[in-house]
Amino acid sequence: MVKVAILGFGTVGSGVAEVLTKNNAHIEEKVHNSVQLKYILDVRDFPDSPFGDKIIHDFALIENDPEINVVVETIGGARIAKEFTERALRAGKSVVTSNKELVATHGYDLMQLAKEHDVSYLFEASVGGGIPIIRPLSQCLAANELTEICGILNGTTNYILTRMIKAGLSFDAALKEAQQNGYAEQDPTADIEGHDACRKICILGSLAFGRHIYPGQVPTEGITRVTLADVAYADACGRKVKLLGRAIRREDGRVMAYVAPHLVDGSAPLASVEAVFNAITVKGDAIGDVMFYGPGAGKLPTASAVVADVMDAAKHLKTRKYMSWGPGGDDVTTPPDGLESAWYVRAEAGTDAVRAAFGEVDFLARSGAPAGETAFLTAAMTRPALDGKLAGMKALSVIRILD
Amino acid sequence: MVKVAILGFGTVGSGVAEVLTKNNAHIEEKVHNSVQLKYILDVRDFPDSPFGDKIIHDFALIENDPEINVVVETIGGARIAKEFTERALRAGKSVVTSNKELVATHGYDLMQLAKEHDVSYLFEASVGGGIPIIRPLSQCLAANELTEICGILNGTTNYILTRMIKAGLSFDAALKEAQQNGYAEQDPTADIEGHDACRKICILGSLAFGRHIYPGQVPTEGITRVTLADVAYADACGRKVKLLGRAIRREDGRVMAYVAPHLVDGSAPLASVEAVFNAITVKGDAIGDVMFYGPGAGKLPTASAVVADVMDAAKHLKTRKYMSWGPGGDDVTTPPDGLESAWYVRAEAGTDAVRAAFGEVDFLARSGAPAGETAFLTAAMTRPALDGKLAGMKALSVIRILD
Repeated sequence: MVKVAILGFGTVGSGVAEVLTKNNAHIEEKVHNSVQLKYILDVRDFPDSPFGDKIIHDFALIENDPEINVVVETIGGARIAKEFTERALRAGKSVVTSNKELVATHGYDLMQLAKEHDVSYLFEASVGGGIPIIRPLSQCLAANELTEICGILNGTTNYILTRMIKAGLSFDAALKEAQQNGYAEQDPTADIEGHDACRKICILGSLAFGRHIYPGQVPTEGITRVTLADVAYADACGRKVKLLGRAIRREDGRVMAYVAPHLVDGSAPLASVEAVFNAITVKGDAIGDVMFYGPGAGKLPTASAVVADVMDAAKHLKTRKYMSWGPGGDDVTTPPDGLESAWYVRAEAGTDAVRAAFGEVDFLARSGAPAGETAFLTAAMTRPALDGKLAGMKALSVIRILD
Repeated sequence: MVKVAILGFGTVGSGVAEVLTKNNAHIEEKVHNSVQLKYILDVRDFPDSPFGDKIIHDFALIENDPEINVVVETIGGARIAKEFTERALRAGKSVVTSNKELVATHGYDLMQLAKEHDVSYLFEASVGGGIPIIRPLSQCLAANELTEICGILNGTTNYILTRMIKAGLSFDAALKEAQQNGYAEQDPTADIEGHDACRKICILGSLAFGRHIYPGQVPTEGITRVTLADVAYADACGRKVKLLGRAIRREDGRVMAYVAPHLVDGSAPLASVEAVFNAITVKGDAIGDVMFYGPGAGKLPTASAVVADVMDAAKHLKTRKYMSWGPGGDDVTTPPDGLESAWYVRAEAGTDAVRAAFGEVDFLARSGAPAGETAFLTAAMTRPALDGKLAGMKALSVIRILD
């Protein structure tokens, strides 16, 4: 008999209650056990909800109830969610979460705590909404030495970029539309500045390369400086602007992790990922490239990932799940300064000045370009080398090109 | 201590030996146990291979060696492979396979046998080469009621279609090129007639819907009748010709499974899957659509999936893995006759005759079309309804359009 408590009755929490209830027969058949929702913790009451009778306000009830084996944390943030997670693990309950901030900042410590108490800490829903990626990374691709993770990890920014590309909306107009459609928060900072993608690449990179990568170790650039001019020049060279999170393992074992806009070739699978969809590519020595694609957020997709983890925890009450995710440290990451790429540059400069600095380059054209604006693609070089060549020019946009 | 025996030292078997050896430190760290290759069974000797000293010719050595806990079957076919699989399972050894024919025709029986002997029968590598799909289907998406699986499941035919579309090669020329590049067998029947894709959709459908679907229950059409004219008309309406395997669960629980060429919208993720790559889309009630993409075949990708299963078996020597895959029967499937789609038709008929039969339709044009050839897209209808309307016409090509 598995009894579940949900912490937080927001979008994801209510979705979890819904999926656990609606698909209960199917879930119990797969788990070979009864799986029942017993409590939902929230500060509010929900008298009109079908789950209203399960609402409680005191976490200690869950903590001290020996019947509860699985706690679902959908509170978000790294404060009260952290306290409740720790208390639940210490009380011998497995914890399942969709909280990327908590996993990205304290994942290693919480997994260690889970290990000490012989329970599981599972977080499939923390990256890519409902897309199965955590379990494939830790299990299905386990025979590979992984070398790179690269993905479109944030649906809000991908929606905004898609609307800029397809409808010609400015960044501000596309953001406003995203907010009106519920795809962006009223305070969109975490999405548009890349913080959300940063947390997700931390989780994926930590899992792929076995050491905790912290958000503070990951240079992060959002999409607020991407303009319609950049989108037009990208189109002129058959590419699309995408915000990517990347984690690349160098030969010496250090990981270059960063978040930044990229120009992606139009025929690459990542280029066809539109609107709020996410996609994550994984490179391994044996497998080559694989890609996982699907809805990156949303109530039911995210709930479906949470419930899959609940089922996994329920099936493994006595055999804890291992993940290979060691402690962090200063020796884990290194800035992507050494990573060579071709670059797209838009500058206030004449073509002669560009040629003088870069030699022969591919110049790009767009209709309506103001006088004095020059856009071009460079040969492969590092960012410091690029900055050296740009020293005398006023660069308006600099975007890395994905190989 | 986990000791492994490989049956068959062909492409996949030698890849498994290579990955097990090359990534051994990494594998043992993840499994928390020693994992060693002890025997390779083959009829031939391989004196020059680095694995030459492990080659044996007598299966009884493996069967009777209590040290062997995991047997990897890469023999192929459903005869000797079946006998050895049964004997290994009866001897209390978990079996890992890449053999889609054996799983598609005897999967349920072999899983029952594994259950009786408290061992695992795992087959991640039987579908999609190295793409993780079996475990995501059985675990990560477990919280969903799945409604449809649809995929590009055969790399050979996708390569041929890609070359027809991109290079304008005829079917025969593209097949010849595929054979020269090692992407098609000298006897390509199983690929081009759709049998390989049929076996794979049987495996995926059985797993998704919980009852064994047999190849004989799956109407199967290959790509031998697809012409450059069809490719050109598809292009004219923004679509691409793709061979798809589909399994769709009807409201009444019956599964419509079939393999046939389809016209896929150019902006759909499946349309961007080119050459020997595979992709599998899964629809669930909570998740919506997710897609898994990667190399559908090849020595190391397939070996990587096999070794992931070996690692899984090694980690679960005492806790057998369940899969929800019940017995087959006449009540499991139903022909896709009731499935409504729009259709692409190329016929020797005048536009008046077409209008008389179908009412208003979208006519398509291509350069160089012979007089009397008419191509058009119909409204949504079932195949029997379509055949009724086509009764008086000479139809040259009839291809279903994917929604």
